[in-house]
Order: sequence, then C-alpha cells, then structure tokens
Amino acid sequence: MTQATAFPTDHVAPAEALRFPDPLRPVEPARGRTAAEEARALVQVNTVATLATLSEDGTPWASLVTYGALADGSPVILVSTLAEHGRNLTREHRGSISVAQAEIIGDPLDSGRVTLAGVWREARDDEERAAGQAAIETASPAAAMYGRFGDFTLWILDVERVRWVGGFGRMDSATPESYAAAAPDPVAPSAAFAIRHLNADHADALLDIARALAGYTDATAATCSRADRYGIDLTVATPRGTAYTRAGFAQACTTPDGLRAATVELTKRARA
Amino acid sequence: MTQATAFPTDHVAPAEALRFPDPLRPVEPARGRTAAEEARALVQVNTVATLATLSEDGTPWASLVTYGALADGSPVILVSTLAEHGRNLTREHRGSISVAQAEIIGDPLDSGRVTLAGVWREARDDEERAAGQAAIETASPAAAMYGRFGDFTLWILDVERVRWVGGFGRMDSATPESYAAAAPDPVAPSAAFAIRHLNADHADALLDIARALAGYTDATAATCSRADRYGIDLTVATPRGTAYTRAGFAQACTTPDGLRAATVELTKRARA
Repeated sequence: MTQATAFPTDHVAPAEALRFPDPLRPVEPARGRTAAEEARALVQVNTVATLATLSEDGTPWASLVTYGALADGSPVILVSTLAEHGRNLTREHRGSISVAQAEIIGDPLDSGRVTLAGVWREARDDEERAAGQAAIETASPAAAMYGRFGDFTLWILDVERVRWVGGFGRMDSATPESYAAAAPDPVAPSAAFAIRHLNADHADALLDIARALAGYTDATAATCSRADRYGIDLTVATPRGTAYTRAGFAQACTTPDGLRAATVELTKRARA
Repeated sequence: MTQATAFPTDHVAPAEALRFPDPLRPVEPARGRTAAEEARALVQVNTVATLATLSEDGTPWASLVTYGALADGSPVILVSTLAEHGRNLTREHRGSISVAQAEIIGDPLDSGRVTLAGVWREARDDEERAAGQAAIETASPAAAMYGRFGDFTLWILDVERVRWVGGFGRMDSATPESYAAAAPDPVAPSAAFAIRHLNADHADALLDIARALAGYTDATAATCSRADRYGIDLTVATPRGTAYTRAGFAQACTTPDGLRAATVELTKRARA
C-alpha cells in the first residue's frame, strides 16, 4: 500500500512529468506500513499539531497546539477559553487536527502528515480524564500547571476520518477502526536518526541494496528517505532517471533499536 | 508590546503560578517588534504552514501546505482539487493559515506562531498570478511543475484577521492594515543561528547584559530565547526564581548580518 513508485495518475498533468524508471529486474513489492499504521506512527512520535476549529464568524481557524494520545491513538489537547480555538471548541465540537513530520528532509510536500477529523468531547469519567491528562503531560510538561487553571479544558477527539499523506504518490485514507487498532511503530522514534546515519555512513550498503534487492541493477547511488519497522524507502539514481523504491526487512522490527540489526541483515542479503 | 515578563493575568489560575521576579534595578522597557511585525517575520522565514478549510460535512479541516507570500505578506498557496483542502477552497473561500516557528527550542507553547484568517481568492490579473507563482516557487521549487498541472489552483489570502502568539505571555492581534504595512525583519532568517551561537559561546556576555542592562543584578545565568532587529529576549536565573526580560539594541538592525554587530555593542555597553 505504501510502495512509493509514482505520482498518482489522476493528476491533470503531462504524462512525462509523472514517469519514473522501473526496476530492470522484477522484484516482489516490499511490505509497507498501512495508512492506519502510518497515521499512528506520526501521532506517536510528535507532540505539536495544528487544530482546525470553527470561529464564530464561520471561518475555519488554524492554530498550534501540543497534544498527547490515548492508548487507541485518540488525540488529547488542553486548551484555554482565553484562546480563540478554545472558545470555538466550546461552541462547535466538530473539528480536526493535523500532525506533520517534525524533521523534514528535502521537499516538505514529500514528507509525512495526517489529518484526524471527528468530534471533540470531554472525558467520559475520571479514569479517562486521568489518562488524557497523563498523555498531554507527556507531550508538554507545562500542561501539569495549565491543567490546574480554571480556563483550560481537556478535549479528546473521537476520530471519524483519517487522511494520511506520506509524500509524493503516498496517500490513503484509513477507517477509524483500523486507526484505533494500529500498533505504534517501535522504531518510529529512532527512524530519523537511523536515516541520517545510513545516508552519512553507509551509502555503499544502500547502493548494494538498491541493485540487488530492489532490482535497480543500473543504480549509481541510493539514499534512504524513510525507515519503518518493515523496511526502508530508497531514492535511487540511475542513468534512466531517479527512481523511488523500497526494500523490506526479513522480519518486522519489534524493539525500539531494531533498525540497526534489520539494516545489517538487509545489507548482508544484498551482498550474498 | 512584546516585552515578555509574565503570563497574562486573566487566566483563572492560582496567583503564585504566574509570578516572576522583578528586576532589582528599574530599567526602561526595551523596544520589541509589534504584533504585526512578529506575524510578518514568521510568514517571512517559513515555507510550511497548516491550512484550515471547511469540509463538505461541516468539519473544519486542518492540512499541511507549502506557501509563499506576496510583497504585502498575503499568503499564496497552490493546491489540487484531488486533495480535500483544494475541493474545500473551491466551495468555501473563507479560511485561515497557521504558520509556526520551525526551530522550536524548549516548550513548543513558548514558541512563535500566527494565524492569518480571511478570504482566499484567485489572482486578479496576470501580473498578480505571476507574482504569486514566483512566491510559491521560492518556498517550494516543485511548485514550478505543479503549477502546470490542470488540477492545481493558485489561491491568495486576503487577510482580514491576524492573531499572533509569541509564546508564554506574548500574544496580540494586529490589524490587516498594520500587517500589510509591516516590513520583514532583515535578521529573521539568521536569528535561530545567532541564538544558538550566543548560548553556546557567549554565556558570560548574556549574563553581563542581564545584570547591567536588564536590571537583574542578582542574575546567576542568562540564556537568549529570541532575537530580532530591535533586541534579544533573555531567560534569567536568579536566587528569586526564573525571570524573562529583554535587552534592546542601540540601533535597530537594518541588514541580514546585523545581529553580530548589535550584540557586540550590547555586550560592550553592559561592560562599560
């Protein structure tokens, strides 16, 4: 689902703008995260988001918030009625929140973001309120103080729609059920570091992987653009143009430090 | 206006949560950027923002965009009707865009962001369309390609409301007229680097400035939290608690590299 090979073909665009070189040797598509897993990973690793609420004059209002998440990925925010978004939420509970990849490499439009839309509500009971307060304090320690202010309200989003965009040609919707069921990615917090490390110190390994495992036998260079529990995305230079592909791990990572062993295995397989 | 000394006092909060130590020696408040100038500087240095549009079912929809700005600071975006925000804009032109400080140091809620709200419209003529297209390509080179796609529309925001939040206790609205008239800050693009440099290599100078120029004669340490054409904001450790203050330059910076000379002058004045 998240195999990144081309722009969506439904753009009203000249065909040559959307053409990328195919692998010279056919390969099995590598497993990627589902849209629900991609969305969950973005919500998992970030703490800052933008809220869209409806202002009194009917204008959709974009504003920055810090957020946490309940165990099922439902976003939690703590906002003041002194702020426009806080007053808006009191009046109109429908809204959405956009979470974007914090560390952007290259074109921002080729980076990950997700919109979660639905209905904001207050906590159902003391247990949920405590879980929500703990979630927001993980993201924003100062929330421990705001949480005591009388003008602040803890809101939880009942997610109804999930729209993920992972970059060029990578986008999909997820059902609220699949989003709630999606497990966080254990390697998501370390992925940005791993990508920098692979590109800085292991360009030769990435090139071998692109040639041997992704079928780009004419590759002249390869960089890692994304990494997750299932594999790595590669940007591959070839004499035929730039290609976008993916190499899958033999086994999905299950621990936070799993990317190291998984990429070592991938390199060994490429060189076998 | 942007002198940062305390939380707004209208929070429904225990008074002790909002109390900060005063300077021991009275000082003149240092000039800061106006809310309009703060807003303009945020729009000037960033290229990624979040849009709020109205979805067909009445839900305010938050989504990531890249943007440019016309000479008067009006945001320009280029969006596809294949995307929900593009379809939303075609139907409902009222909306807003939130621009947040890219490099966040410390608590995200203590960082800068601005919401510009108003009515999106297409370019009035070829000249404005060319200016808009050039602005968006500065922010996002790939827009040169998207601009040719038939499903993309260039939208310009006629700004009606400007709400700036600069961090804790720093927030204000600006009129659309003052926003359009506000000049970009020549040192805004280099401020993040200057702040890192001052904190890494000139802690002694910052401490002298806090003691001699900001009136915190009992300061034990000081770090720079913000820098602009008019001065620097300082976070000051004292035996009486943490204080937030500002030191103003003798003359406003007028060139992109102006912060170096201005902070050297500030240090000399503190040590005179």
